Amino acid sequence: MPLPSPLRDTTAIVGIGATEFSKDAGRSELRLAADAIHGALTDAGLGAKELDGLVCFDTDVASPIPVANALALPNIRYWATTSYGGGGACATALLGMMAVATGQANYVACYRSLRTASGRRFGSWSGKEGSAGLEQFFAPFGIVTPVHRRALAVTRYMHDFNIRPEHFGAVAVACRKHANRNPKAVMYNRSLTMDEYLGSRIICDPLRLFDCCLETDGAVAFIVTTAERAKNLKQRPAYILAAAQGAGKQPVWPPPTAFHRTPMTTTHEAAASAKNLYAIAGVEPKDIDCAQLYDHFTPLVLMALEAYGFCGVGEAGAFAEGGRIELGGKLPVNTAGGNLSEGYIHGVQLIPEAVRQIRGTSTAQVKDAELTLVCGAADDPSSALILRR
Amino acid sequence: MPLPSPLRDTTAIVGIGATEFSKDAGRSELRLAADAIHGALTDAGLGAKELDGLVCFDTDVASPIPVANALALPNIRYWATTSYGGGGACATALLGMMAVATGQANYVACYRSLRTASGRRFGSWSGKEGSAGLEQFFAPFGIVTPVHRRALAVTRYMHDFNIRPEHFGAVAVACRKHANRNPKAVMYNRSLTMDEYLGSRIICDPLRLFDCCLETDGAVAFIVTTAERAKNLKQRPAYILAAAQGAGKQPVWPPPTAFHRTPMTTTHEAAASAKNLYAIAGVEPKDIDCAQLYDHFTPLVLMALEAYGFCGVGEAGAFAEGGRIELGGKLPVNTAGGNLSEGYIHGVQLIPEAVRQIRGTSTAQVKDAELTLVCGAADDPSSALILRR
Repeated sequence: MPLPSPLRDTTAIVGIGATEFSKDAGRSELRLAADAIHGALTDAGLGAKELDGLVCFDTDVASPIPVANALALPNIRYWATTSYGGGGACATALLGMMAVATGQANYVACYRSLRTASGRRFGSWSGKEGSAGLEQFFAPFGIVTPVHRRALAVTRYMHDFNIRPEHFGAVAVACRKHANRNPKAVMYNRSLTMDEYLGSRIICDPLRLFDCCLETDGAVAFIVTTAERAKNLKQRPAYILAAAQGAGKQPVWPPPTAFHRTPMTTTHEAAASAKNLYAIAGVEPKDIDCAQLYDHFTPLVLMALEAYGFCGVGEAGAFAEGGRIELGGKLPVNTAGGNLSEGYIHGVQLIPEAVRQIRGTSTAQVKDAELTLVCGAADDPSSALILRR
Repeated sequence: MPLPSPLRDTTAIVGIGATEFSKDAGRSELRLAADAIHGALTDAGLGAKELDGLVCFDTDVASPIPVANALALPNIRYWATTSYGGGGACATALLGMMAVATGQANYVACYRSLRTASGRRFGSWSGKEGSAGLEQFFAPFGIVTPVHRRALAVTRYMHDFNIRPEHFGAVAVACRKHANRNPKAVMYNRSLTMDEYLGSRIICDPLRLFDCCLETDGAVAFIVTTAERAKNLKQRPAYILAAAQGAGKQPVWPPPTAFHRTPMTTTHEAAASAKNLYAIAGVEPKDIDCAQLYDHFTPLVLMALEAYGFCGVGEAGAFAEGGRIELGGKLPVNTAGGNLSEGYIHGVQLIPEAVRQIRGTSTAQVKDAELTLVCGAADDPSSALILRR
């Protein structure tokens, strides 16, 4: 067990930034990344000359060195990348935390920059991509995009626990309601009722259009530094109580192709992340005031609710109903609208929203939020963190 | 300045492993990685169940999750990747050090697995790769592979400092002599004289065949843990005094295309790494007993000698002569043969050799070696470390 952790409460997020979220940003991933990081520095009251670390996804087109050049950083002395798509969303923060806690950098910007709307769409498949690794065993059956792969696991999940489409709809509607309060969300002006959800077309049975996240152009960034330095900066610090990664036994990539693991309908990755996270944090699910749960597909939010202990396994469908995951409910989820309705920046945009909850500046503010949990994709090799006021 | 560093002397390398180095390994990168890590665990006296972290290059075909599955790791709770090719060789160690020092993992295996001999050769170009970023400005002039790009900078380096081919030959011959003592080196049985070096064909003027590193199939791995845990393991610990990254102002990728920086003939990346490294380590170049300097091309070893302060700028040509960088000389370099003559595992194999020097088990053992420096490619966004007995 990793207790006591030298990383517990010793670092903070001190600045957040984002570009607009759109269907066509009209500029490169590099420019988007630079804009978002510049915004985060301004928010923190820092200059580019103080930024000496950069962390992003290994798939970021705008990688740290070009970004350092674009921002004219005088001495970048730390950079690192995390892998496995949306699962790594919170691992970006971890890589920043470790660097500032060990003195390898003073201020690390973690960022993600994407053009999945105007550039290559994650949800599409041209036939030219080829299939390697485990994908080669799925492609002959027409299982070639993320939604295809999830449909299999979700079908079994519905069967095992008597989950109905309305349960997924509760997630879609909650995220949309929160987006309708957030002027920066792609879906700010478009409401969604349960009837509209149920009437939306099937993309890959049992998943409907509104079960699937957006594809968006945009970038987000946040600045990590030590709790000590955070005291003297412009914003109320969002202390990072803990961050962790987890993949469980016999992990595979891409997900969810780990059909050799039992039970098949549990997200082993998120369960492992949760176990590691709570062990470091020393808090329990009941202590969490709101949660930003990676929502590539609505059922994965239900599975994350279970994995992070907000309800029992198989109980998340019922938990999500009755406004329980909406603002004013027991556990408001994805209070800016999430990947489903705010914009898809690979889940990294969930972290700035968690920071806003800690600052008290969310457009769907949970009153007196003390602790906010964020998690990456529950069925990818995963990561999670808890912010503390 | 990063002093005092919580990472100074608090971690150690406790196990090293490697596959054979060959022109055709006859097995996948995944199998090679698993074999090397298994070897490193055995060397340390550890079992797979204790390994909970994995670090590699972002370009590793064998990425951490498939490796975790192949090794049946029960709870992998940390993984990360480093970027920019050979420059990141020592950043793998840094990513392991930070994790164990902050309690995010207990034992991290850092590894690199390659099939550059039987698979895709780094030195070749088919015309189908396309050119993005800065490469698009070089490709129309036929500058498409690493050797082409280096030839430009090396030509200027020779002009500015009156460097002759014999200076490069001194590096090639020193590495070969060391390989001739190392039965595991690809070039163990093949000697190299200065005349043979000078008679070798030009690949890209002024670079000859023997100025260029090998292309090799194989994998290496090493295990990082805390200094505390290291005390109870099988081998004499190789304590990591310090590790650092650096890229300098206005860094670019791919290298060396930073012709906007003056002086053009200084490796800004290695100079920045060196500055950051020595600041943390609290030692000086004169304290180093031997050095493992990334040798993709012989002139880059000379530039690294300068960047890491073993001689003045422009003086490395003379420094390398007279056996000064051979076993028995002032600063033995690449004592297992290096990328040039042991095998090309992207410079990560230099770290196990540094460990052997600390243990006293190198086949070109420097007597009573107390401190060994290792650096990644001097003209990539770079990294370096110092091991202490």
